[in-house]
Amino acid sequence: MTTTEAGAGTPSTATTPGPTDGAAVVTDHDRGVHGYHQQKDEHLKRLRRIEGQIRGLQRMVDEDVYCIDILTQVSASTKALQSFALQLLEEHLRHCVADAARQGGSEIDAKVEEATKAIGRLLRT
Amino acid sequence: MTTTEAGAGTPSTATTPGPTDGAAVVTDHDRGVHGYHQQKDEHLKRLRRIEGQIRGLQRMVDEDVYCIDILTQVSASTKALQSFALQLLEEHLRHCVADAARQGGSEIDAKVEEATKAIGRLLRT
Amino acid sequence: MTTTEAGAGTPSTATTPGPTDGAAVVTDHDRGVHGYHQQKDEHLKRLRRIEGQIRGLQRMVDEDVYCIDILTQVSASTKALQSFALQLLEEHLRHCVADAARQGGSEIDAKVEEATKAIGRLLRT
Amino acid sequence: MTTTEAGAGTPSTATTPGPTDGAAVVTDHDRGVHGYHQQKDEHLKRLRRIEGQIRGLQRMVDEDVYCIDILTQVSASTKALQSFALQLLEEHLRHCVADAARQGGSEIDAKVEEATKAIGRLLRT
Repeated sequence: MTTTEAGAGTPSTATTPGPTDGAAVVTDHDRGVHGYHQQKDEHLKRLRRIEGQIRGLQRMVDEDVYCIDILTQVSASTKALQSFALQLLEEHLRHCVADAARQGGSEIDAKVEEATKAIGRLLRT
Repeated sequence: MTTTEAGAGTPSTATTPGPTDGAAVVTDHDRGVHGYHQQKDEHLKRLRRIEGQIRGLQRMVDEDVYCIDILTQVSASTKALQSFALQLLEEHLRHCVADAARQGGSEIDAKVEEATKAIGRLLRT
Repeated sequence: MTTTEAGAGTPSTATTPGPTDGAAVVTDHDRGVHGYHQQKDEHLKRLRRIEGQIRGLQRMVDEDVYCIDILTQVSASTKALQSFALQLLEEHLRHCVADAARQGGSEIDAKVEEATKAIGRLLRT
Repeated sequence: MTTTEAGAGTPSTATTPGPTDGAAVVTDHDRGVHGYHQQKDEHLKRLRRIEGQIRGLQRMVDEDVYCIDILTQVSASTKALQSFALQLLEEHLRHCVADAARQGGSEIDAKVEEATKAIGRLLRT
């Protein structure tokens, strides 16, 4: 079903030849390209912004800013990290997990278990 | 209470009488049966245990138990609720989301978006 | 400083005689009454509402309600529990922790450490 | 950078030269020094480590590391941030909030409300 999802932020996957031939569903994942690669630039921008927030926290501690104001900034950074995680997870479900379902077999069970564990780790922080 | 708990985790729901006509993949979901129904008893048992914990909290408040001990019990109840949510989510991904992927079309996008939003709500609590 | 904070929802602490005599600061805590006792009725009402939500969850599972709708209700219950915990914590800080600070000595360190650990447990759920 | 880090955790700030004149309790806070300043170096070290984790995340995204492994690293970073927040909060309670309690008056109520709101923000992320 998914055929050519390439492009969008990928410098190199354009020329992958074969995969649209046979009956088998060939996915980005088979080609070693993960779901999130299409939003790579956006992800990197987000992470750089979070890095800036963490450096801001260092400045606040260094300048003896009031504890509560630092805590507010920590909450903002944690929220930004969770929001990044959520977007990554959405793409993972949309691509890797859905691909596993399409391919049939028991792979989907492993993928779902793996994703659930990752969500559990996010919840526990 | 639950009567017809058809073929747990089978990708080919071959023997179900009515809906197996055409070539289309027919899923539990089409039959109005959600992923979690197979663990229904286990879910109900978990929820009754959580209900017991909440009643325990009422007793603690009523008997003027030390605040910190009440907070510890609140953490345990919250953890139990999160753990219930995680199991429900796993079954949802394994059944409803995977089914949508198998059926093809744009349904999978809606399902993934919906699941991600639910995970986001869990994270934010 | 705080002298008679009794009353408010307590059936029995009214007649505690002695402690207002000397120079020492005598607190509710010394009298075995914790910070939250004044909002006891409100706490019990909140907890009964949460208990109702948990029973609602059982009904939803029993009636095969859609997974995502159940997850939404779990989020609401978790939020309600966290909100209860937060109120309890506020009263604990206002009474038990503040009392320990007023009394001087090393008690305050133990109280703060204990409260911080409780907050850590809440965060980790 | 910080030079005068007076008596860590001493309830009697007796030997600090200037402010010990009258009967009033004079605190670090009055002197514009917040609770966390004594662990400043440790805080900065923690934050630099978190900054390193965030840069690690950027590398992972850039090198197309598997989504789940990135999510695991996000969880670790979030946990590290929460742990930093918790330590800051502990010092805030031990110093700023306890000082407000010792000084008497209504300041303690404002301080406790402010701290509770900060804890609420941490919980909600």
